[in-house]
Amino acid sequence: MQKIEHIGIAVKDIASAGKIYKALLNTSIYKTEEVESEYVNTAFLQTGPNKIELLEATAEASAIAAFIAKKGEGIHHIAFAVGDIEAEMERLKAEGFILLNDKPKRGADNKLVCFVHPKSANGVLIELCQDV
Amino acid sequence: MQKIEHIGIAVKDIASAGKIYKALLNTSIYKTEEVESEYVNTAFLQTGPNKIELLEATAEASAIAAFIAKKGEGIHHIAFAVGDIEAEMERLKAEGFILLNDKPKRGADNKLVCFVHPKSANGVLIELCQDV
Repeated sequence: MQKIEHIGIAVKDIASAGKIYKALLNTSIYKTEEVESEYVNTAFLQTGPNKIELLEATAEASAIAAFIAKKGEGIHHIAFAVGDIEAEMERLKAEGFILLNDKPKRGADNKLVCFVHPKSANGVLIELCQDV
Repeated sequence: MQKIEHIGIAVKDIASAGKIYKALLNTSIYKTEEVESEYVNTAFLQTGPNKIELLEATAEASAIAAFIAKKGEGIHHIAFAVGDIEAEMERLKAEGFILLNDKPKRGADNKLVCFVHPKSANGVLIELCQDV
């Protein structure tokens, strides 16, 4: 793992959350993107080498809608940058971690991603991500 | 804010969680420290410019014990590195954020810290931290 690439935060309203995180981090939103396959709108803010990804559900079928219904707004996942996602997936499988996808899939912000089950990591949903 | 300094993860058993996070991040624990004033044991792992801080309660009075009782294990807070914590506290107060302490207090890992109420930041407990 190279660094924390981003922290994903589940929010109800991305416009109002965007204002709050711009004020908190004293920076601007450098990118917004809808990920239709995941039923989410995203907004990204940069802080040094790391990012905050705000996530708003666009449909009831979204994992973000389910997360907020169960736990309320808050941190949804931590994403770590990796150089070779397939090698890292193999390494983690061999270590006994449960991966939520067999192959890397396309995520927001031009990334290949794979999720690790929170049961494997003390309740934390972990994402691996590699630049496409 | 300069970067994500660390992510604090509340765990029931820091020895077993330490093994999991060493395997996940493919690195070692570079420091352990008891913070008596907060009733916690901590263990730190480095990933590039960022850290993971594992937090285990040492007494029922610990905020970590209360967090786990309510929500289970998982991400407890995000800490951002700041250059001048008092100036950043003033800036955030002026922006309407609710700070959980009036003055910086001493945290783990040789830091001065201040927390921002999760109600101010979409359910996320934010820590500011500055090197002592």
